[in-house]
Parts: sequence; structure tokens; C-alpha cells
Amino acid sequence: MDTSENRMIEENQKLMENKFYNDILPLNRSGWLTTEMFIKSVVDLLLEFIKETNNPNTKVINFHHPTELIAKLDLRIPINPTSLQKVLEDCKEVLKYQVRTGHPRFFNQLSTGLDLISMIGEWLTATVNTNMFTYEISPVFVLMEKEIIETMCEIVGWPPGKRDGIFSPGGAISNLYAVNAARHYMFPRCKAIGMVETPNLAMFTSEDSHYSIRGAAALVGIGVDNCFPIPVDEKGKMIPSKLEEEVILAKKNGYVPFFVCAVGGTTVYGAFDPINEIANICKKYRMWLHVDAAWGGGILLSKKHRHLANGIENCKTFIQQIEINKFVLIICRADSVTWNPHKLMGALLQCSACLIRHEGLLFQCNQMCADYLFQQDKPYDVSYDSGDKAIQCGRHNDVFKLWIMWRAKGMNGFEQQVNRLMELANYFTEKIKKTPGYELIMENPEFLNICFWYVPKNVRHLENTEKKARLDKVAPKIKAKMMSSGSTMVGYQPDKDKPNFFRMIISNPATTYEDLDFFIEEIIRLGESL
Amino acid sequence: MDTSENRMIEENQKLMENKFYNDILPLNRSGWLTTEMFIKSVVDLLLEFIKETNNPNTKVINFHHPTELIAKLDLRIPINPTSLQKVLEDCKEVLKYQVRTGHPRFFNQLSTGLDLISMIGEWLTATVNTNMFTYEISPVFVLMEKEIIETMCEIVGWPPGKRDGIFSPGGAISNLYAVNAARHYMFPRCKAIGMVETPNLAMFTSEDSHYSIRGAAALVGIGVDNCFPIPVDEKGKMIPSKLEEEVILAKKNGYVPFFVCAVGGTTVYGAFDPINEIANICKKYRMWLHVDAAWGGGILLSKKHRHLANGIENCKTFIQQIEINKFVLIICRADSVTWNPHKLMGALLQCSACLIRHEGLLFQCNQMCADYLFQQDKPYDVSYDSGDKAIQCGRHNDVFKLWIMWRAKGMNGFEQQVNRLMELANYFTEKIKKTPGYELIMENPEFLNICFWYVPKNVRHLENTEKKARLDKVAPKIKAKMMSSGSTMVGYQPDKDKPNFFRMIISNPATTYEDLDFFIEEIIRLGESL
Repeated sequence: MDTSENRMIEENQKLMENKFYNDILPLNRSGWLTTEMFIKSVVDLLLEFIKETNNPNTKVINFHHPTELIAKLDLRIPINPTSLQKVLEDCKEVLKYQVRTGHPRFFNQLSTGLDLISMIGEWLTATVNTNMFTYEISPVFVLMEKEIIETMCEIVGWPPGKRDGIFSPGGAISNLYAVNAARHYMFPRCKAIGMVETPNLAMFTSEDSHYSIRGAAALVGIGVDNCFPIPVDEKGKMIPSKLEEEVILAKKNGYVPFFVCAVGGTTVYGAFDPINEIANICKKYRMWLHVDAAWGGGILLSKKHRHLANGIENCKTFIQQIEINKFVLIICRADSVTWNPHKLMGALLQCSACLIRHEGLLFQCNQMCADYLFQQDKPYDVSYDSGDKAIQCGRHNDVFKLWIMWRAKGMNGFEQQVNRLMELANYFTEKIKKTPGYELIMENPEFLNICFWYVPKNVRHLENTEKKARLDKVAPKIKAKMMSSGSTMVGYQPDKDKPNFFRMIISNPATTYEDLDFFIEEIIRLGESL
Repeated sequence: MDTSENRMIEENQKLMENKFYNDILPLNRSGWLTTEMFIKSVVDLLLEFIKETNNPNTKVINFHHPTELIAKLDLRIPINPTSLQKVLEDCKEVLKYQVRTGHPRFFNQLSTGLDLISMIGEWLTATVNTNMFTYEISPVFVLMEKEIIETMCEIVGWPPGKRDGIFSPGGAISNLYAVNAARHYMFPRCKAIGMVETPNLAMFTSEDSHYSIRGAAALVGIGVDNCFPIPVDEKGKMIPSKLEEEVILAKKNGYVPFFVCAVGGTTVYGAFDPINEIANICKKYRMWLHVDAAWGGGILLSKKHRHLANGIENCKTFIQQIEINKFVLIICRADSVTWNPHKLMGALLQCSACLIRHEGLLFQCNQMCADYLFQQDKPYDVSYDSGDKAIQCGRHNDVFKLWIMWRAKGMNGFEQQVNRLMELANYFTEKIKKTPGYELIMENPEFLNICFWYVPKNVRHLENTEKKARLDKVAPKIKAKMMSSGSTMVGYQPDKDKPNFFRMIISNPATTYEDLDFFIEEIIRLGESL
């Protein structure tokens, strides 16, 4: 930075120290220059953050315990206004203690990465600050949501006129939409009179499915205990014969089985349930089939890998429609699908779609016909007012940040992105197989979750029980050291009889082969002294 | 713009035409300069939008019918990537057809305005793209949410240790949280076993309350028909004696009354229900009292006006605590409160809090103890992992955009903002009282909703039935003309026996007295030729 730049920064700072919220727009209509300078100063801070986040040698996390961080930060609301300079300093301070989820070495969650085109999409979304409930105030985004829902349904493989969907605030809410829609489909009177006449309902879900399915069971009044977990095989996939056994047993016990959740990419192992076989059972017993592909939905974008999504893959997809006109259609058999573009596709959080193979059902199920919002005598075709199919009233626009990145990448760019992540995952798996100390939980992970133990030298020679007990403490200890060193981040958990193990997630397009090499060495380094 | 600037723009454009998503970060680590240039180009578009939005002489809306807009926009996802220049053009196109919800003459919804400090808060939120479920990856925002929830509960008037809350995606979901928490409080076994053993539950809500209360009744399995509407008086306030009658009747009919929703600022009239009297009835019959102050919650920030929130006003508030140490405490009597800072306070959509006067209840009610996320052997105090009290898993950070604007304004700045809006509303009411053709629905609106008919000249002399029939068509016709002229925007609806009337909402800090004068004249102009 040269002297003139430094001087300019100092002058800006002095100016901002004497300016307050009411010196800029909208309160001060002649405050444009200050407004512009203020916003640009924030942008400079954000650009700096982005630059640092993308440098693999910066820290992923600058860890502080809650009490330490509370002592460092001043979070209180003051009595009097603070200057714009103080606002900038607040932003700086907040940025300083962020966990860099976009960092190439952040592997801690299913949602990682910072796609900058999605990000500018979210900046624009904030700037236009509108609400998805009516075409009246969100004309472009309402049409855009319709278009993207259509595209996603097309990829899932449902024909036009038999599909619908909505963007919801996250996969848990999308799953809730599905449970509620299924109940309404089978017991439409429940909306009016409640569960009083409804028989005892039974839901079934892979024991490895996401906890939000049980959460939805609790919330809609079915109850967690009536959401039966179905055992999985050694690859983490639901065992269809076990599902049928449970359905038969439930019927014998006086339940009405009505809903099955199969998973397209489980949270821990990334397993895809055998959807065709499950769909057969659903058909036989007239149950709704929901596929929670919150995590794995993105795999449908890759011709090479979408066979994974067994049951939602053998379909006429958007890509195939264009490339193979004579493709034999096998319409996807799910009644509903949760697909979170904020996971594998890398859209900014939150971006989740609940797709439904029953046009009109969301409206029937959720509409409350509010007079003040959904007037029928508006001067345009009110069938575009999609808000009454939502369980929300005000609804954030989650579609633009997806649309703009999808436009920028095109179908092909996204396919390459998914393929590359699969290659990185394969590279990682093969490399840790050959690295002493690493033990895979599943020999050949099929997706982007690679679960493993790191076994420190002095634990390697131990036998079963003792080894297990020691291993259970290794992952938390390595994680603690990892967080204080700040070099990388990865999650861990136990599962059934398995002691704590790491779950590596490769979903960040920023990650390179070198970052994976670094990670493997870093775990060894951190685990060495244990 | 001078020639050198023009030349620079042209050069940028040429550069951007040959650059794609993979030429910038994160995919191209040496692409910093292009990245920076791209982001700054987007910022320039957004700044231009902000500037125009704040100019009262620009159009609020550039209306097109859905089919027209579909024809103008290209919303399809392409096969191949598009250049960054095309991404910029996409942004430009999308901005062109926005309804300017921040425009000083936009009065169409409860959420209006574009607070630029909240906006840069949302830009930062997008840039750090993290998730509220754990302290592990959102240390700052988790602490910030705790602080702001504490502050809001303090303002509501609950003592420390007896309060809790969560930010949710909108008021409808906050109301859903309240209904679910109330059910869990009274029937904790329902979470596990569903409604099978639960008696027939009855809910009660002002007939003028928001439709999301009925929506929540449907979703949780209680049923819309078991959510009984309580009549309101001529000011739109719930009549407590009618509530008691309905409760007694419900009990007689075998129901267990368990939940009452009183409103702090109704959607159409802005009425505040008499909360103290309602609370007495709730106490007598052991019912949960929820106050839906999604819209009116912000009034608590004004010492002058918070008496409106009768029942949530006579409390030790944050402001009073500081200014009047000896203030007699009357603890707020609601069990839960919905308060949307994205409405009266002007935070960007979405920003809604569900506050609960029962510490620990949200956890008990919603937690599912997922092993992979809420490990108990983490290296920090895991009581800070607030995610397990949410019905969502991934959760957008909605607190920062509120915190940063609240910091900038301070308690006093916000108080002034609320007071000024009340003054504007009063000015508007008094002025239309004196303006021929205007007829108020309620003589003296107490809040920021001013409901009125505009009666065109040739309708003024008509009698009852005919006048009503004609009036019912006037508001939609004026609205249609308003939307095509684009000069301003306001909502309308019928209510019970009242034909379509306008609902003016004054919640946008950008609005001036001149804008209100303009609006009054504009309605006359648009209504003249009817």
C-alpha cells in the first residue's frame, strides 16, 4: 500500500468517525457520497476476508472458548448511536473470529465452500429485500423459483403437470413439508379436525437417516416413537426386507403405515438407500415414499455418478433429455424428494427444495386463503401467487443465489464440479488406505463421506475392547488440538458399536489434492503425541 | 461520466466477456484480480439500485403481467457456462424488474424499507456463510443470538433465568414454535407417542390474528377447526368476555383448552389485544398465553408509545432499567412472544424471534440429540450449542443484520425511529380526515396501519348497498392503475362486511411527509376517472 492510499484510508476513517446511521440513505437523502463510501468500506473488509479465506495457509479457525470470546467481544446494544466507523470496526471484529467455512481445508460439515457467484447472488437478494409470498412484490423471483423447481423435478424425473415444489429454510423443514403433505394426501380431513379421527400412524425411516425425520414426527403430532428406524446393512443402506417386516409388524399392532423415508446420501456415511426395492414395498402397502436427498441430490447432476441415487436415477433427466432423445423413461418413484443445493451444489446457506410428485397438493395442504395477501381480484393471474402453498408467510428468496450460480456454471460446469469432488474423494480414500494409522470404517465409500479412525502408534498394538475404549477418546483429542492449532477442521462421531471416528466430507470446490495431502499429514502430526 | 471512466467500463466488459466462473476464486487461486473486479462490478450495480430506490421520483414498480415477464426474461439453465459479463447482465436484468420495497413510496406490506446497515450486515452474513447449529462453527453469531434474545426478553419484561428464545425463518414459524412448545409444556408425552393419548385440544385466537396460527394448528395435528376465532370489538381488539365464553363452551364440549393467541398489532388494523385481561382468563383456565407481536413488537422500543402493547408494556424494560431504577416491576404475563425485527424495526427479511418465558423448554421440546452434530465430548462448553432447540438443523444467521443495525442506532435511535413513524402515521390520518373522498375504516387508528376507502366522486352520493358494491371494485381498480403507473404501492382487502379498502402501512423510515402528501394526491388522481 503506498502513502496516498494510506492517507485516503485515514481520511475516510476520520470522516466515518463523525458520521452516523442518519447521515446516510435512506434517512439523509443527500447523503449519497457518504453512503457510497460506507458501503465500499464494508466491501473492502469483505474482499479481504474472501482473499484470506482462499489462502490455504491462513487459519481455518481462531478458536476461543465461549467465556474467552465473551470477554473479548462487546456484544451489548448501546443506548446511543455509534459512528459508522464503529460499525466498520464491529464488522472487522466479527470477521476476525469467524470459522472460515469456505477455507479449502474446512471439512467439518456437509455444507462447505464459499461460491462467490452464489455469494453475489445473496448480496443482490439482500439489496432488493423482497418477500416470496406474492408475484405482486416478487415477480422475477417467483417466476425463477417456478423455473428452478421445474428443472429440479425434471432432473428427478417427473413429467410436467405431475410435479411441484417449494424452497424452504433448510432440509429439516423440507422433510417436514413432505411428512405433512403425505399425511394430507392420505388423511385430508386431518387439516381441519386434527388427528382425532386419524388411525395410529406409522412412519419408517432408515436408522441412519437425518434426525429431522423424527423431529417432523414429533412436531406433526405423530410422535417420535411411531417413527420406526429400519436397520441398515454394512454399507449403511436400509435393508428392504427389514422394512417390510416392520411394516407387517406395525399393521399387526394396529398401526396404519403411511410414510417411508429413504435416504439419498446419509449424513454420516453418505449411503444411498436402494430406492427401487423400497418403492416396491411402498406400492404394496400404499405408503408415501419420501427420499431425503438433502445431501446426495446434487449427484443427479453427474451422468457418471448418478447411478448412485438408485431409484431416482433411471429417469429422463434434464441432461438426458437433451443428449439422448430416445432414452427409455423410468419415472422416478418417490412421492417427494428433499434436495439441498446448499450442500453438494455449494449454494450459500440456506437453499433447500422440497419437491413433490403431486401437483396442487402443497396448496391443498397448506393454504389458508388470507384475504389481505392472496386477494382473488388482483390485476394479474393470481395463480402465480405461490405463497399460500408455504407453511411460512414471509419467505426469504433462496432461489436467486442458486439460479445465478447455475447459470454461470451451466449443467456441464456443475457436472464437472461433482465429478471432480468424487475424484478428490477417491484420491483421499486410496491415499489413507496406504497410510499407516488410518483405518477406514467402510472399505470403499461410494460418495463424498469418508469415515475413518486415526489410530495413534501406541494404540495400534492393542486388542479389541481396550483399543475401542482408547480410540473413542482419540478423535475428540485430535479435534481439540486441531481447533486450537486452527489448521483444518473435520467432524467426528460414534455410531452404534463404533467408537468415535472422523467423518471427512469433500464438498468444497476450493479443495485441492494438496489440501488433502496436508490434511492426512496434519492428522498424523496432531495424533502423534497422544 | 467522463471519457476515461467510459473507457474503463468498456475494458472491464471486454475482460469479463472472456472470463468464467472457474477463472475466479475459489477455483482459480491466482484469479484474485478478476475476482475483485467482478465483485466490485456487482457492487456498482447494487449501489446504482440503492441510489435509484431512494429517489422518490423513480418508479416503485415496473409492472408486467406474468406471461409478459416470462417472455422478456430468459430464466433457463444453460448447458454450458456463461461468461462473467453475462452474469453481470443477468443481475442487471433481474434488478430492472424488481418491486422497490425500499422505495419511500412503497406502503404495500408490513415489511418495507431498505436499511443499509442491516443490508451490509446481510452481505457480511452471506460472505461468512456459516450455520447457527453449533458454537463450533458459529462462535460469534451463537453468542450474539444469545445476547439479542436476552435483550429482547428483557424488553418484554421477563427476568433472567426465566427466558429463552430462538430466531426462526419468519413469524409463521415463530408462532409454530410457540404452539409446539405450549403443547409440550402441557403434554410432554406427545413428543414421543403423538396425539393418541392427548385429549381434544382447543386453541383460541383473535379472529383478526394472522393465518399462521391456524396454519400451526393444522400442521401440529390439532386441526384448523379446533382453533377457535374470538370476536373483536370495533377497534379490532379481542373481546375478553367472548374468549371466556368460548373457553367454557369448549370445555363443555369435551375439549381441553390449552392455548390462547393474543395479537400485538393485527395484520390489517394494527390492533393490540387487551393482554392483561386475556392473561387473567389464561391463568384461570390454565392456558398458555402467546402474544403474536410479529408486527407490533417494535413499539416496545418507544417509551412514549409502548403503552399500546397493553400487557407486555407494564414491565421492567431494558430502557427503563437504565433510566428508572425504581420502576415497579410488573412481569410480562405472556408465556411466549413472536417479535419480527424484519417488520417495524426494519431489519432485512428474514428476522423473526420466538421468545419463551420458560428456560429449557425449547430444548426439551425439540431436541433430538444427534450424535454427529451435538457431541457431548467436544473441547468446549457444549451448552453453547444451541442448535438442538431448533426445529431446523441447518439454520441461517438472522441475528447479525439486526445486531449491527441496533448497534448503529442504539436504543435511542430506534426509539426515535418508532416515534417518527408514529408521527407520520398521525399526520397521514389527520390529513386524509380532511381530504374529500377519503373515509377512515376506524376513526382513530392507534398504530401504523391506516385503513380507508377512497370514494370516487360519482360513488359518494350513493346509498348503502349500492355504495358497498361499487366500493368493493374501487380499491382493486385503483390498485391496478397504481401498479401500471408504478408511482406508489399500497395493499387492500375486504374484511367481514366491509368491502375492499386500502391498508396504508407506515413502517419505512425512508418515507417523508412529502411522500405521504404525494400518496394522498395520487390516490385521488388514480380514482378520478373511475
